[in-house]
Amino acid sequence: MKIFIINSGSSSIKFQLIDFEKKNVIAKGLCERIGLDKSKLSYTLGDKKSTIDAEIEDHAEGINMIISILIHPVNGVIKDKSEIDAVGHRVVHAGENFSKTIILDDEKIEKIRELIPLAPLHNPPNIIGIEAVKKHLPGVPMTAVFDTAFHQTMPEHAYMYPLPYEFYKEKKIRRYGFHGTSHFFVAKEGAKRFGKPLNEIKMITCHLGNGSSMAAIKYGESIDTTMGFTPLEGLMMGTRCGDIDPAIPLFLQNTQSCGSEEVNMVLNRMSGIKGISGISSDMRDIEKAAEEGNERAELAINMFSYRIRKYIGAYIAAMNGVDLIIFTAGIGERDIIVRERVLTDMNFLGIKLDKEKNDGVFGEFGEISEDGSPVRVMVIPTNEELEIAEQTVDVLKNGNPK
Amino acid sequence: MKIFIINSGSSSIKFQLIDFEKKNVIAKGLCERIGLDKSKLSYTLGDKKSTIDAEIEDHAEGINMIISILIHPVNGVIKDKSEIDAVGHRVVHAGENFSKTIILDDEKIEKIRELIPLAPLHNPPNIIGIEAVKKHLPGVPMTAVFDTAFHQTMPEHAYMYPLPYEFYKEKKIRRYGFHGTSHFFVAKEGAKRFGKPLNEIKMITCHLGNGSSMAAIKYGESIDTTMGFTPLEGLMMGTRCGDIDPAIPLFLQNTQSCGSEEVNMVLNRMSGIKGISGISSDMRDIEKAAEEGNERAELAINMFSYRIRKYIGAYIAAMNGVDLIIFTAGIGERDIIVRERVLTDMNFLGIKLDKEKNDGVFGEFGEISEDGSPVRVMVIPTNEELEIAEQTVDVLKNGNPK
Repeated sequence: MKIFIINSGSSSIKFQLIDFEKKNVIAKGLCERIGLDKSKLSYTLGDKKSTIDAEIEDHAEGINMIISILIHPVNGVIKDKSEIDAVGHRVVHAGENFSKTIILDDEKIEKIRELIPLAPLHNPPNIIGIEAVKKHLPGVPMTAVFDTAFHQTMPEHAYMYPLPYEFYKEKKIRRYGFHGTSHFFVAKEGAKRFGKPLNEIKMITCHLGNGSSMAAIKYGESIDTTMGFTPLEGLMMGTRCGDIDPAIPLFLQNTQSCGSEEVNMVLNRMSGIKGISGISSDMRDIEKAAEEGNERAELAINMFSYRIRKYIGAYIAAMNGVDLIIFTAGIGERDIIVRERVLTDMNFLGIKLDKEKNDGVFGEFGEISEDGSPVRVMVIPTNEELEIAEQTVDVLKNGNPK
Repeated sequence: MKIFIINSGSSSIKFQLIDFEKKNVIAKGLCERIGLDKSKLSYTLGDKKSTIDAEIEDHAEGINMIISILIHPVNGVIKDKSEIDAVGHRVVHAGENFSKTIILDDEKIEKIRELIPLAPLHNPPNIIGIEAVKKHLPGVPMTAVFDTAFHQTMPEHAYMYPLPYEFYKEKKIRRYGFHGTSHFFVAKEGAKRFGKPLNEIKMITCHLGNGSSMAAIKYGESIDTTMGFTPLEGLMMGTRCGDIDPAIPLFLQNTQSCGSEEVNMVLNRMSGIKGISGISSDMRDIEKAAEEGNERAELAINMFSYRIRKYIGAYIAAMNGVDLIIFTAGIGERDIIVRERVLTDMNFLGIKLDKEKNDGVFGEFGEISEDGSPVRVMVIPTNEELEIAEQTVDVLKNGNPK
């Protein structure tokens, strides 16, 4: 089966074409600056990278261009559109409408549209992507794989905020959590490596990238996660602040006499690693600067690591234990320094880092805890596209969840 | 020595007169509704309770009235003002200006005044109280004991927020923490009961009252605490929300089209236990309702307890261990149900609650962990006034800290 994976942003489309049986990426690419000047499509077919500069007016045009590359008579990877068996769409927000991957139809698309107030930046471009594919691949079954769905198993005491109860009932303000596809993917991989069924393991998964989140996964179910109503809460991120005193946004408005939009922009785009270091939102730049003696860069690494460390403790308390801690995504897979700062001096919690092993794991699977460490720690590369493909195949076989 | 303790609010003055050698409260009381209608002074001299209804125009008049009761020829407890050896003022916010208790003079008062932007609701009435006492007890030495001071030992990675660095430099936005006097008092008491010097113990102190906070106290120093830039952050409280997604205040403004002041009011006064239960901010009412089957009351207890539990884990990770956990203040000392929900199924962290012992401790000292529990847990009644008196005597003997 060939599964076409679509991640549609406000002016971009990320795609992969996956040969499901071989777990092989046949083609992948990115359509950028859709509707803007200098739009382009960069893609890899097999090993060959190419870029096309072209005016791409809208998402439908982008999808059409991607498909024509896939079926190109000379360089293409499939002969005809009909070889595409299904399309899996990454959709950010399912609210409480869906707790599983679904097969899309008009009614379901409408239900995703209803959730726009909860994800005004993300669900609209996701829907545009869905509509664009529907236009160019009529009749091909499509699924929506939601970033929030995996966390719908959280118990009430974890997802409710201590706010007036009506805010939940009327405005749907609660913890949703994001990165669910990634947390679930590495949890399943982790269970295989651990050698026990997923539903017998207590895990903490750390998805650390430009956006970062952690999840407490007890016997296969997410019971808590750091991102909340929005992806702003929780860990310190590239440019997002994560947890802060909720009085601060209001204090900023009053003392800066700026509007809520401006504050929102500061908390989302000028904070986190970038805000503290003043250098960059990329941890690689920060670590280089820290090595050269930059104190604010050093502080940014310490704050970033300390906050992960505290959530590890919090989730151990929430689950009364942990068997396996997993690091994934850009920083989780490649940042040896962050992993070391998070995991050093954690023996009280049964975590014993093997410094040498940790030093050797970069962007690939590796177990980095000492042999015999009561809590095992692994680095597991995430693969959200493959997970979307798997869930797509699964739901098409078994039908929509009841 | 007789120490006069003053806690001055916007329309109130709480006081105690303490015989320091005997650790005995000679007199205590509360002056309420100062500057409003129906103002009154209620007080206890020895065992005798009384109330005076009188027009109390300002704090100076209130202080004068309190002093005249203390020196009353028939019912008074001292013969003359001159028997008051010192006055200890509770002051909320020391910013980064002071990390210890200080002897007050005009210059120091000015430095407290400078901090008003950080504590607009609290420092002004504190200063008014100081000025009022100065007027009526000229020449009597006065000290300021700060709620934030104890937490000034926090390391940078714990007190900094992941916001643009200038917010710290220019606006002094950082974690300060509050309830410091109480955390320090119970920590010292705890060390005595534990049988080791304070600077050899890792502790977590849980001050749970209408306002609640926790502190991680490593070898006698606060290294982290749940309240932050303001007392709104951290645990769920009577009417305060504690930790929430920082995007929520902004979302409320945009969707409710209400101002930041209104949102501030909701987060501070209509949230927490009151907001979730819809019944009351008082945990006693909530537990009664939960017992009668009220589900939102049950949820409020679970959320309240769960959030304490998570911070216990977080602080264990921060300190790589804990020897002693202390519960104090109204809920901490008296709420058997909350203590049980927080501490049950925590054996992975070395915490073993003795349910029977816990059931027997109400408003007094008691050790509630099992004999031989790797982590010991104690209930220790707090006494902020006595701590203020002790610090006052101490600083007057040793002089201002350098």
